[in-house]
Amino acid sequence: MNMNEQLNTYKQQVEEALEGLPFAGVPDALRDAMRYSLLSGGKRLRGCLLLAACEMAGGDAKAALPFAAAVEMIHAYSLIHDDLPAMDNDTMRRGKPTNHVVYGEALAILAGDGLLTHAFSVMAASAHPKAFEALGEIAGAAASMLNGQTLDVTMAGTEPNMDLVRDIHQGKTAAMLTAPVTAGLILAGASAAQIEAGRRYGYHLGMAFQIVDDLLDIEGDPDLMGKTLGKDEEEGKLTWPACVGVDWARQDAADHIRHAVGALSAFGERAAFLQQLAQATLTREQ
Amino acid sequence: MNMNEQLNTYKQQVEEALEGLPFAGVPDALRDAMRYSLLSGGKRLRGCLLLAACEMAGGDAKAALPFAAAVEMIHAYSLIHDDLPAMDNDTMRRGKPTNHVVYGEALAILAGDGLLTHAFSVMAASAHPKAFEALGEIAGAAASMLNGQTLDVTMAGTEPNMDLVRDIHQGKTAAMLTAPVTAGLILAGASAAQIEAGRRYGYHLGMAFQIVDDLLDIEGDPDLMGKTLGKDEEEGKLTWPACVGVDWARQDAADHIRHAVGALSAFGERAAFLQQLAQATLTREQ
Repeated sequence: MNMNEQLNTYKQQVEEALEGLPFAGVPDALRDAMRYSLLSGGKRLRGCLLLAACEMAGGDAKAALPFAAAVEMIHAYSLIHDDLPAMDNDTMRRGKPTNHVVYGEALAILAGDGLLTHAFSVMAASAHPKAFEALGEIAGAAASMLNGQTLDVTMAGTEPNMDLVRDIHQGKTAAMLTAPVTAGLILAGASAAQIEAGRRYGYHLGMAFQIVDDLLDIEGDPDLMGKTLGKDEEEGKLTWPACVGVDWARQDAADHIRHAVGALSAFGERAAFLQQLAQATLTREQ
Repeated sequence: MNMNEQLNTYKQQVEEALEGLPFAGVPDALRDAMRYSLLSGGKRLRGCLLLAACEMAGGDAKAALPFAAAVEMIHAYSLIHDDLPAMDNDTMRRGKPTNHVVYGEALAILAGDGLLTHAFSVMAASAHPKAFEALGEIAGAAASMLNGQTLDVTMAGTEPNMDLVRDIHQGKTAAMLTAPVTAGLILAGASAAQIEAGRRYGYHLGMAFQIVDDLLDIEGDPDLMGKTLGKDEEEGKLTWPACVGVDWARQDAADHIRHAVGALSAFGERAAFLQQLAQATLTREQ
């Protein structure tokens, strides 16, 4: 299988795991709002990273599926809450109206809370021997996301500053791209050195991913992106291109990917998929 | 020690555990908003229940403290989000302005998300041999709370109906009074039968607690309650007194407490504290 075929296989596994979540006992209104955002497409990058990292270290991807579902649920919750009127006030995402536009603010808040809560329930229901450790890794990343989002919301409009932007990107984006990798490795029973290599990979992948996101907000295709572009500059958001310019930002993203690829060298051939996935981040158009 | 002295001892232990939470790496704005609601007083009933249930079954309350802190963090998160303008739109709680009044809606949403997330981080950082099982119990209750809150928000204004009100009370209130008891018992290594007894106690305590809450909204002292009263009727909230009237509601609360007390009979003398605590619920004024 080439990289794209493998990615589609992982993506389909994640999609099926998400579609199969029972949400037992959840009132219809809340379940509908949760599923609207959870099953609205998306790349499933976080879930795929978790399955791929698990297999890279010789683990069983099937046993890791509840954790792949959990990281996607946490990602979906964060998008619902970030889109709220009091936060980024976004009305479109992935070419569809955002959650609060469809269900109203009260249900959107509850749907986000619900996806975050059920992510932990799903992990807690796993009988995997490494479940508790993997859950801790993912909980830490969920906390980091809030740190990044807080800085993003509260520091908008201030002078761009590389250290601050790095902190925002690390929290908002890199943490929840790193945790799937390290959790996947933990579930596979990887060594501490392997987990640290995965942590470096995830960090650099995440930084590159967010820089490319910032670049796409400047020069992307709104139809492919499925959302309004140009909002970062309009709202004075602290982005990497705002710090160093578009050309340097593009170069910095490429440097991060070089580091991400290098971090996995000890895994040899087994790292090919995650290395190619990182490379593909640089040329993504959505 | 009599019941009130014991309750104060537990409460102080919970308070110290909450004050000592480091929230490492959390930006000041978010930490301030989280601590504002988390450390704003309150009865600490959930944390105290967890410590007391643990000790009732011969467990070590000190080792259970992270879980007592976690249930209080989850309670605080739920109050912050319930008070939001899009939800109950409450401006006062415990005699102080609510979180969103002080910090704005964006930070209030993030502070709620943060307390929920850190509750799981704190439990995941515990080395307690029963940590994973206790965490699962608490995660399930956090999910039930959202079910109850969803019904509370979406069904307001409809005809009062005992089954529906029971579902709302079970989700909104009883679940997060039951989980501290069952989690405390789990942490103490209690038997399945003991845990089931704790579940019955928590259910009846929770139902009584919410009925009394509904009664206080009708006939309580606003100064003692520290919030605006009479809102339930104004907003068409589905309450137990709205179903059966004030007199029957008072009687039903007493019946639930009788069942709660009876549920713990197998614990003998060791159940005295939790039984007296349940009795005191009936005469509380705040």
